[in-house]
Amino acid sequence: MVLLNNSQSDRSYAILGTGALGGFYGARLQQAGAEVHFLLRSDYQHVRQHGLTIDSVQGNFKLPQVHAYASVEQMPPCDVIVVALKTTQNYLLPQLLPPLVSETSTVLVLQNGLGVEAEAAQIVGAEKVIGGLCFLCSNKIAPGHIHHLDYGAIALGHYSDDNQPCGITRQMSEIADDFRRANVSIDLKDDLFLARWQKLVWNIPFNGLSVVLNATTEEMMTNPAVQKLAEQIMREVQMAAEAYGRSLPDSYIQKMLDHTAKMKPYRTSMKIDYDERRPLEIEAIFGKPLNLAQQAGAQIPRIEMLYQQLQFLDKQNRSV
Amino acid sequence: MVLLNNSQSDRSYAILGTGALGGFYGARLQQAGAEVHFLLRSDYQHVRQHGLTIDSVQGNFKLPQVHAYASVEQMPPCDVIVVALKTTQNYLLPQLLPPLVSETSTVLVLQNGLGVEAEAAQIVGAEKVIGGLCFLCSNKIAPGHIHHLDYGAIALGHYSDDNQPCGITRQMSEIADDFRRANVSIDLKDDLFLARWQKLVWNIPFNGLSVVLNATTEEMMTNPAVQKLAEQIMREVQMAAEAYGRSLPDSYIQKMLDHTAKMKPYRTSMKIDYDERRPLEIEAIFGKPLNLAQQAGAQIPRIEMLYQQLQFLDKQNRSV
Repeated sequence: MVLLNNSQSDRSYAILGTGALGGFYGARLQQAGAEVHFLLRSDYQHVRQHGLTIDSVQGNFKLPQVHAYASVEQMPPCDVIVVALKTTQNYLLPQLLPPLVSETSTVLVLQNGLGVEAEAAQIVGAEKVIGGLCFLCSNKIAPGHIHHLDYGAIALGHYSDDNQPCGITRQMSEIADDFRRANVSIDLKDDLFLARWQKLVWNIPFNGLSVVLNATTEEMMTNPAVQKLAEQIMREVQMAAEAYGRSLPDSYIQKMLDHTAKMKPYRTSMKIDYDERRPLEIEAIFGKPLNLAQQAGAQIPRIEMLYQQLQFLDKQNRSV
Repeated sequence: MVLLNNSQSDRSYAILGTGALGGFYGARLQQAGAEVHFLLRSDYQHVRQHGLTIDSVQGNFKLPQVHAYASVEQMPPCDVIVVALKTTQNYLLPQLLPPLVSETSTVLVLQNGLGVEAEAAQIVGAEKVIGGLCFLCSNKIAPGHIHHLDYGAIALGHYSDDNQPCGITRQMSEIADDFRRANVSIDLKDDLFLARWQKLVWNIPFNGLSVVLNATTEEMMTNPAVQKLAEQIMREVQMAAEAYGRSLPDSYIQKMLDHTAKMKPYRTSMKIDYDERRPLEIEAIFGKPLNLAQQAGAQIPRIEMLYQQLQFLDKQNRSV
């Protein structure tokens, strides 16, 4: 027991995107003794001088000194490269990944949506890529200052180019050890593709409708018309997953609806991005699932309509 | 020729709802010599004292004196009762119609949507009810003051309880004579139900999406995603009409799209209602067509979704 508690990772981590998500998990890893290297953009000077501050429901902490970088060229190759950018930044990956990746590196993609690992896999090969689904509620409230409001668990799964289950790989287990040591709950999934569809059951209706309807989860779930629409959209996600042989039981949909009805009023991450006039992760969460569904012959007209509406709203939002 | 030009209607008209639409057509009829009685609410005192003022693309005119009423009890029975209320006011018809209707009266329903004549027909009988579809662009800009911007034609059709074509009836021809004499273009339709579906091909996508997306016709038609969505929604209207044996050719849909792309930027009537925080005509334009489509087994998921979104937005809009 003592050995386990005192043990620390001998794996080094690179965090690409030190925001609400990457900053939080990276700080947790460093707090637990791991060697962590943070890539920053606008907060670089501040974090280099003052480190990171985490206000967390699990207890506040500060890291006065962190390895902060403004470019990947200054960073060392790392054992695990954590992609914690928004998916709208993934066009940068061909520049960001190669300098950091060695023969034995693993790329951990902590992003929303579907098919997001493919972009990393094209660069480093699928065998090096693990996907992570984060159930985290946190915001960046100032440079280098992150407010962790709730949750934090990650579901990990190994990526394959044909989206087939890969089982529990050695890389997954090693990364899980490090995160668990850092007090992050980890769920190992043998079927990453299924896990991604499961998460989309919530993300597609509520992220999408929160923007189109300018609404919190509570406002949506207390309106009978929207509650029904959310369920219909969830059933379309179910159909799309079914077209790829992944079964999402009705009871899972009901559980998501019940859970959402009971949550405290919540502004979704896509709504926050919209309100801050940041680009929306439309392709990862809507475009790619829609495209896959259509390739498999599944008709999901409501998701298509949501995708079309969001494309319009995102464009208008950033051209004003 | 001289006789025709000088002839004037011997039919009396009651206008229920003296707004942008009822005020315009009623004023045109009175200008042409017909006896017209106007029911007003908030503008009653003003119109009783100052009459009506019409600024029209076809030439401005004033009617310094009109028969103005604050309640139907003071009005005489009329030959033609024009229902020019918003459909959201139709719950008033059981009080408004009976005092005005005689054995020989006709009720002319100048409203948007589908099934709107049924509410009048339940009170006076279908044989007395004619539906009119107005292609009119006008606004009320002050009490008793209407700005007629463009168009103005009306398509008339006789109503039947089973929505079957009724041909061109005597009542339609008589009303057409009066309106034509008043310089209003009239198109007689033997199939009112078909005409209503035809108009919905435009009204459903553009009225609905203009509110959900906070957009003008131009903004919608210059965005490829929304243009495609509008076309897909039009095809759902086409399918719903088809389920009732009404064929709307693809060329008609294309004509509507081309026409809309070429129009000057236009804020739809539903968007104007929304911006003014007035109740939206959701049931007439979305709810009833959806209900009929579903009864006939037609799946129109995009229209259902638009209906659900509008119900939410309308409720939020009027509870703030």
